[in-house]
Order: sequence, then structure tokens, then C-alpha cells
Amino acid sequence: MGADCVYSIIGKKPFDLVIKNVKIVNVFTESIVEGDVAVTGGVIAYIGPIDFPYTANEEIDGAGRYAVPGFIDAHMHIESSMMAPARFAELVLACGTTTVAADPHEIANVCGAAGVRAMAEASANMPLHVLMMAPSTIPSAPGLERSGWSLGEKEMEELLDIPGVAGMGELMDFNAVAGGDERILGVVEAARRRGVILDGHVPALTGARLQAFRATGVDADHTDMSLPRAKEKLAAGFSIQIQHSFLSEDLIAYVDQFPLQDRIMLITDDVPFVELVEHGHLNANVRRAIALGLRPLRAIRYATINAAARLRLYDRGAVSPGYRADILLMKDLEKIEPDMVFSDGRLVAENGRCLVRMEKYKFPEEFYHSVHVLPLAAEDFALKAELPAGAAEALIHVLGCNEITTRTKNETRWIPVRNGQLDTAGLVKVGVIYRHGYGPEKAPGKEVSLGLLAGFPAFRGALATTYAHDSHNLTVYGTDEEDMARAANRLLEIGGGLCAVQDGEVLAEVPLPVAGVLTEGEADELQEQFGAFFRAVERLGLRHANPMMFLTLMTLAVSPEIKCTDIGLVDTLEKKFVPLVVEAR
Amino acid sequence: MGADCVYSIIGKKPFDLVIKNVKIVNVFTESIVEGDVAVTGGVIAYIGPIDFPYTANEEIDGAGRYAVPGFIDAHMHIESSMMAPARFAELVLACGTTTVAADPHEIANVCGAAGVRAMAEASANMPLHVLMMAPSTIPSAPGLERSGWSLGEKEMEELLDIPGVAGMGELMDFNAVAGGDERILGVVEAARRRGVILDGHVPALTGARLQAFRATGVDADHTDMSLPRAKEKLAAGFSIQIQHSFLSEDLIAYVDQFPLQDRIMLITDDVPFVELVEHGHLNANVRRAIALGLRPLRAIRYATINAAARLRLYDRGAVSPGYRADILLMKDLEKIEPDMVFSDGRLVAENGRCLVRMEKYKFPEEFYHSVHVLPLAAEDFALKAELPAGAAEALIHVLGCNEITTRTKNETRWIPVRNGQLDTAGLVKVGVIYRHGYGPEKAPGKEVSLGLLAGFPAFRGALATTYAHDSHNLTVYGTDEEDMARAANRLLEIGGGLCAVQDGEVLAEVPLPVAGVLTEGEADELQEQFGAFFRAVERLGLRHANPMMFLTLMTLAVSPEIKCTDIGLVDTLEKKFVPLVVEAR
Repeated sequence: MGADCVYSIIGKKPFDLVIKNVKIVNVFTESIVEGDVAVTGGVIAYIGPIDFPYTANEEIDGAGRYAVPGFIDAHMHIESSMMAPARFAELVLACGTTTVAADPHEIANVCGAAGVRAMAEASANMPLHVLMMAPSTIPSAPGLERSGWSLGEKEMEELLDIPGVAGMGELMDFNAVAGGDERILGVVEAARRRGVILDGHVPALTGARLQAFRATGVDADHTDMSLPRAKEKLAAGFSIQIQHSFLSEDLIAYVDQFPLQDRIMLITDDVPFVELVEHGHLNANVRRAIALGLRPLRAIRYATINAAARLRLYDRGAVSPGYRADILLMKDLEKIEPDMVFSDGRLVAENGRCLVRMEKYKFPEEFYHSVHVLPLAAEDFALKAELPAGAAEALIHVLGCNEITTRTKNETRWIPVRNGQLDTAGLVKVGVIYRHGYGPEKAPGKEVSLGLLAGFPAFRGALATTYAHDSHNLTVYGTDEEDMARAANRLLEIGGGLCAVQDGEVLAEVPLPVAGVLTEGEADELQEQFGAFFRAVERLGLRHANPMMFLTLMTLAVSPEIKCTDIGLVDTLEKKFVPLVVEAR
Repeated sequence: MGADCVYSIIGKKPFDLVIKNVKIVNVFTESIVEGDVAVTGGVIAYIGPIDFPYTANEEIDGAGRYAVPGFIDAHMHIESSMMAPARFAELVLACGTTTVAADPHEIANVCGAAGVRAMAEASANMPLHVLMMAPSTIPSAPGLERSGWSLGEKEMEELLDIPGVAGMGELMDFNAVAGGDERILGVVEAARRRGVILDGHVPALTGARLQAFRATGVDADHTDMSLPRAKEKLAAGFSIQIQHSFLSEDLIAYVDQFPLQDRIMLITDDVPFVELVEHGHLNANVRRAIALGLRPLRAIRYATINAAARLRLYDRGAVSPGYRADILLMKDLEKIEPDMVFSDGRLVAENGRCLVRMEKYKFPEEFYHSVHVLPLAAEDFALKAELPAGAAEALIHVLGCNEITTRTKNETRWIPVRNGQLDTAGLVKVGVIYRHGYGPEKAPGKEVSLGLLAGFPAFRGALATTYAHDSHNLTVYGTDEEDMARAANRLLEIGGGLCAVQDGEVLAEVPLPVAGVLTEGEADELQEQFGAFFRAVERLGLRHANPMMFLTLMTLAVSPEIKCTDIGLVDTLEKKFVPLVVEAR
């Protein structure tokens, strides 16, 4: 390819493409070069005014727009979009993302190594370049939840053998790492021996414990980026990967003056489908960083060449000779909305629409039968607490929720006992059913683990989801046991997804038939389904700033403070089970 | 290893080593942290004041010295030192160099792929970590000289298969690259397909020709770093590797404020043995950069973490948890003289002396028989120009030399003809004899290619060398043909090296029996030999600022302006042969 670039410059072959009249963003000098961009064989051959004789197979007028390197997302999860890679690619290419490092830990919790392999195969040979990362922490809270897989050293090695897998995905059980847990350290060592990229997830450690985590070789983090944490991580040699929610004026001001710029980058982590459609992808973070005061050329660098360096992709991240022709043309450097997106020198998106139709990948048949649960009845959702005869009230643990965050408070409260049963009026039940099947035959079960949520007094009906971090067990929220059973059974019928039920009627549903976490439908279709689903959520009276996050996170036993898994109620700070009923009197 | 670091921090295992009471240079923040450095399994586990209970197998008092990362040399040639890797390692470890990327293109010109393989084997498993680069341009001037090998695409692939080879060494025939020469482009493509590091050597290209060179994927240069050249290369995405001779105040001032700091580094390229002993290794460049105004912590970064990033060595370049414990302790940050050098956590040098004795590598037997030349007689060095009968004078090409540089002027001058022969009084003859053998049997020859040097009127005697860039043919300088034959024959006897002869007597010699370019002797011994040799050079009347450079570069057909190879006199700017005698009258 490089040879062909030389031949084009010396006039022995035409350039494949010349984009005339652009303002080229040079990420090395943080400056603008006016001129043209000439491409041969998918590689940039020349930038600047072409002051020598040449021919070109195609010439495009850049009309004075900026030519920016394609955005590179150094840490993200495709499954957050709930879209299969092909459809996801179409959406994000239109936003200017041309390379992503994807950690498929959601689907791996359901399908194990086969899930990673399928995502790698499904993501190969697209104009969106996908680097697959091997999920490292499955389940996220061993012993406190059950998922479809359990990953140790041997499994990590198996994942790293899959073509397209370039590194170890975020190591999430930071307390176990810093505490010297042999199993998790074995996983890291397996990856470290391969010399691959090692990603971390380390919100809470500082001091010696943070250094212990770093000493394992893991050298990137995308979690807590409050200023003191970001400073400490940078000083310890971490690459800091800043997601949208951590962008702040003081962080921007700090990183802007930091002497070693190349370990700072912008990433997306999780972008739910609705946000993706409304606000965009990595370009939305770049836009936000600029709005917070970062110089546009520096913000672009954080989402291009710096991410490329982190991912050890030496062939991209710059509009400069020798680099892949992944190029965005945009009118201004504040909105960060590409008019034209080139991948390997080919125009793949224009004015927010993808021009290329990606081939549909055929997932393994068993991925479409991933909800191994027997049909449920109302009584399966009944609380069967053993209370002393004659008790009038009981002290119970609840997930103390509010309408803003997904952080729960570990609260206890006294509730009445009527007819020997807990009276849960004013509370919302959550039932979590292990859905990955028992034994090698994946025999279905119907064991419901129940908890209670406080904070949604207006809720009435039921909401069910098979997308529930990270184990993706079948999770049902509700006030009416009949509705809860109906919602759960509907998901059994459609092979997974989300649905809303009230008074026995399915009000809305979002089918996610691939492993219960992905759809293969079109973005337009999904947008309609989500629209209907959110209207139904509102009608059910669940008021929350981010209902999707809320519904999918009440099962995640690694985030504070109390969660409900398929095994029981978990005090996630103490990493132990707590009983629903503490005492009765 | 990482796991053991964690165990040491949590008190489950002792640290292997704790260096107490040091000022730790943090290359990420460009700041100093006071405290301790704790090491386990050759990896840094913790830095800073150890404020938790711990045990250590060994504890050293750093006595308030600076703890600096071991220096990493991203571009160099071991053969410049004329020492075998084991002895070279002992010398440079004492200077604080703990990792080098070595391009063995000198020995490869003599021994081909076997030379690269031998250097890789000889350099394995030493406390000096050696990354081998595959030489890419052999011979350096195809068609204008003959060496012991000729490298094309197939040979590059062969080199890249050698264990320990990490990339393509400096691509030197930049004009051929920018001119679209298919053979050299095939070599680059072979390396590019492997995705390895691609080094360049591109002093003279600018504009579209520089971009053409860069478009091949080659992205580092260590040649001309005059300010405009350095600026253009940085803007084109090159890593700039600054050697001692290009360090200047204006370059330092420019790079200091450059926004993308990670592509700037200090390297040594060639450090002849005598300079190495007198001034040091990469530490001498760091010292010089600081003397020219660069902040010490930034200069250190250019010789540590930046070089590591270039070499894709993610496990070194910082005194920080997770990094290899390659650590220098030094009293100040101006002299850059390490008192103690640790490699992988082991003390390997102290007060300028290496404490470790490296095992001698057994080079293949044929490396000791690399001078395939028949014994020479005085008449072999006689000029046999065919002059017209009765000519009184002749116009000849000479290598116009001076006492300062190694750049020659392509001059012509009239000299007298006496008895039908050129009268070369006042000039010095240079005779170059192809020494790599003819045919698969490597049959010896004795064909002498002759040239004349102007600029050394006081010279009397003969100097011979088998170390002569880059083809390393047997090269003899002299005014007396008997002495020239004696000097040449002495090198045949000792298997190569350098020697000085006057009035039939060998005044001094430096044996280089390995491929005629390396010795396996001790540094002390070599220092004595060089001392004697330079005294002899002076006695012979060759006055030059750098006689070693001068003697070994008059054969290099890729540096300006006129040189003498084994085939003939070469106008190196026009890349063509020129006759010794232009005309006679």
C-alpha cells in the first residue's frame, strides 16, 4: 500500500481519491494546514497543496471544511446500544467513529467464549474497525451472582486466542486484585504473559492499593475521574479514558496543562441506544470537552491519535501520510458533526446517514434461545418470608432508590405484617430469575430471588428485562404479581428483551432476541420500540431520569450499596448477602 | 510477576528489594516524589514513602539520590563500539543504558542474515536488554559497491523471523524510496505487512518526497535535525531521534514547547569505542541536552518513556509500579552519571563499573575467517592508468579532504606524469579490496580499486582497516606501496581490524577478528590498542579531528561527495562512477 502511495506521488499511478480544498487538522502540531488530501490504496499519501502534476480516479471538493481523523474509541461496549455490530456500525460511522475497542462482556456473561467469538466474527471486515477485548471479570461478583459463564486463567487464554481479540478488557474486581485474590490475579497474569493491552476499572482505589492494582500491569482506567482521582491515576502511569459523565471544567483545565499528553483520551464506555440516536457517539464527548473549554484540536487528539497509541494501532489517528484514510469532513470544530465520513478512503457516511449496508452476521442458533426459564405464575413472585406466628411488623432491607441516580441506599424499615405475610404496599418488588440454565443441558428453572425497592410510590404494573448488568438474568420489577408473571412470560416468548405490562396487558416491548441483549433490527425500528417502551414506563409511574440505566443496574452487585441478584440481596460494599427480613415483632 | 507485587504490598511476601530514601523522577508528571522504591520479581511494586508494614529481602539506602528510569536507546549500532555485545553491555550498563534497539547492519554487510542471527543470540538474556532491528539497506549503495550480502524482500522476511528481531532498521536509500524503486519498496512492504517498527534515515528529503517516504509507513528518523528539518519531520508524524551531533539550543527550545512530546527522543546512533569510554553513552546526550537548556526531567523523558513508547516496550521507561525495575541512582541531574544501575531489580553496575560478567557468546566459526583476500604485493597498489604516450600531465578526480569533517569534495586537479605514470606526490592513495569472497566458495581475490585523497600532505606510511562503512571491504590508505601491502597483509594474518605501518614496520594494530568488525577483548585492552593506534596515526602524519570516522567513511557511497568503493570512484551525489583520470595532455 505504501508503495502505491509513492507511485501516485511520482505520477506512476493515479491517486484513488483527492479531497480538494480542506483545512487539515494536524494532530501532531495541533495546527491547521490548508490544502488537499490525496489517498491511494486506503492510505493517505500526501497532504497539503498538491503542487506537482498528478492524476486521480476521483476528486471531491472539500469546500473549505475541516479534515479530521476518524474518531477512535479506546474503551466501549457495543452491547450498550443493544444493536448487533452491523447495525451499530452504521449508526456510529455516521457520527464519525471509525475504530472502536469493544469489550463484549455483556454477551460473554450470557454465552461465554462463544459470545466473544461471535462478536469478533460479527465485527470483522466492516468499515467500522473493531478491536475486540477479552472480558476479564465474569461474573462481575463471583459467589454473589450467577451468570452464563465463569472466567478464570484458562478461559482468558482461550479468549486471547480468538482472532480479532487484542487485549484484556476492563478488570473490574479491583478489590479482589488489590486484596491479592489468586484467581483474578491468575487472569491478569495470563493476559500479561501475552503482552497485550490490559484495561482496568478502578473507581475506588487510592494509595498503595491503587499502586498494587497498577503493578499487575493494568494501565488504563475509565471510571472515577474526579480531579484528585484523575491526578493520582495519571501520576501512576495510567492512561485516563474520560467518559461523558466525568467531563468537567476542572478536569479539562488540568489535563490541558499536563506534560504527558498522550495518555489522555476521550471514550464512550456505555452509550445506550437512545442517547446514541439523540446525541451521537464519541463525537458528543469531543463536543462536550470543547464546550467545557478544551481547545478543539486538543480534544480531537484525545479522540484520535492518543486512542490509537493506547490501542497500539500505529496506522491511524492522523490525517497525515502513511495513515489509514479514516477521515471526517466537518464544517466547524464546535459541533463536531461530520458531513462526510471516509473509512480506508471510501465514503461511508454523509450528513448523518450511513451509505454502506453492512452484511448481517448469522449468530449461532443457540444465541436465540438464551432464556432458560420455565413459565412463571403469579405465586412465583410471592414473598414467602417465614415470620413468627403473631408478628405484627417486620424490619426489612430495601433498595433505597431515588429518581436521579442508580446508586441505591442500603436501608432498613419496619413494614406491617398482615395475615402472616409482609405488606409491601408502597414498595416495588424486584424478582431476579437465573436464566442461563442448569447443568450441561441448560435445564430451565424458575427460582425467583426477591427484593424490595423504595422510592417509587406511584409505580403500578410490571417491567421485565433480560438485559440486566452484568449477569443478564431475567429481572422483573412490579407491584402486581400477575403482571410480573405476564411480563416475564412475554420475554420467554420473544426470546428476551424488555417489556412493560399493566393490568395483564403488554403495553410495549423491545425484543432483544440475540442472547437476550441484542436486536438485529434496524435503528428506526428500535427507536420506535424504545419510544413506546418509555411511554409505557411513564404510564406505569416509574419516574427516573434514566429509566434504562435504572432498570438494568438494580442487579449489578459491584456498584453501591445494595442490589438484588439471582441468589439474594447483596450488600455490595461489604460483599455479603443480607436477609430480606432482619427481624419481626 | 504482577501478582507477586500485590502479595508484597499486602504483606503476604517480602519485597525482593527496597531502595529507601530516594528522589523518584516521575516521567509522567515531570516531577519528583520523595520516598522509597519497592521491587518484587524484577518489577516495581510501589513508589513513595512506605507507610504500611512490610518485609524486604534486601534494603538499600538511596541516600537522597535521584531514582531515574534506566536509559533506553531507540536507535543505535552495537558494532560502532567494535565490541562484542557482552563486552559492550558491560560498558553501557555502567553508563545507565539498560535497553537498546540495535541495528546490526555493519555485521550484516559482512555475514548476512547469519550476522543478524548471531548478534540477536549474542544479545539475548543479558541485563542490557537488546531489541534487534533487521537491517534494511544492504549494500547501502547497490551497484556502486559490493558487500557480503544483498538484501531484498525475501531476505527482510527471513530477518524478521529471527527471534529477538522487533522491526526494520533504518531505511537508508531514501532517494530510491521516494523515487519509487520497486526493490526497496518491496523490502519496506515486507516489514510493513508484519506490523513491526519501521525506522528511517532521511536526511535530505523535504516536501512531497518526504511525504512519499513517510507514506510507506516508515515513521522515525535520526538524521538531519537542523531546525527546519526537525519541524517538518515532527509535523509529518515522524518520531525524531536526536543524536549528540544534532543537539542545538534552537532545537531544544523548539522541542521543549512542542505539543506532542512523546515522539521526541534522544538516541546515540554511532558511539565509537573511544568516545564511549571517554564521554559515556546515552547519558552523554542527556547531559548535553540539559546543558543546552532542556529541563532535566524532560531530557530524561526523551531517553526513557518516550523511547519505550517508540519501541512498543510498555513495561519500561518509568520508575513507577508495574514497570521493570531498571533504575539508576544518581547524585545530580546535570552530570547524569549513575552511581548505581539496577536491571530488573538487580544491581548490575556501581560507580561506573559493571558488576556482572556477561557470558561470552560463541560466534560461528566462519565469522573468524571473513577476510577473503589473497596476500597483496606492493605492485597491487600501483596505479595502472593508461595514459597516451608522451603525456606530461593528467587531470584526475581526487577526494578533497580536510582535517575537520568526513565530507569529501569532488575535486579535479592536474598532476604530473613521469615515465608514463601518474606522479601522486603530495596525495594519499586509497585502495579498496573486495573482501567477501567470490562465489559460493568465497574464493579470495586481490583486485584493488584505487583512488587518491588530497588534504594530507604530511602523511607517510600506510593505514589499513576492514571496518569501512558500510560494506567493510579491506581498505588501505598510504603513500608507500610496500607499506600498504604490509598493512593489508597484516590484517589478513589477524583476521581483520585496523593497523598502522611505516617503513615496513607494524606500529600498532587493533584486531577485530569477528567479521573484521568486532573484538571479543576487554574494554581495557581495546583502550590500550586504540591509544597505540592513534599515536601511530599521528606519527604517520594523518591529522584529523576524528581519525576513526575519517578512515572508516571514505568508502561510504551514500554520503557526499566522492568516495572510493571496491568497484571504483563514486560521485555519490549523482550516484555514478567517475574515472580516476579524466584526461591527459
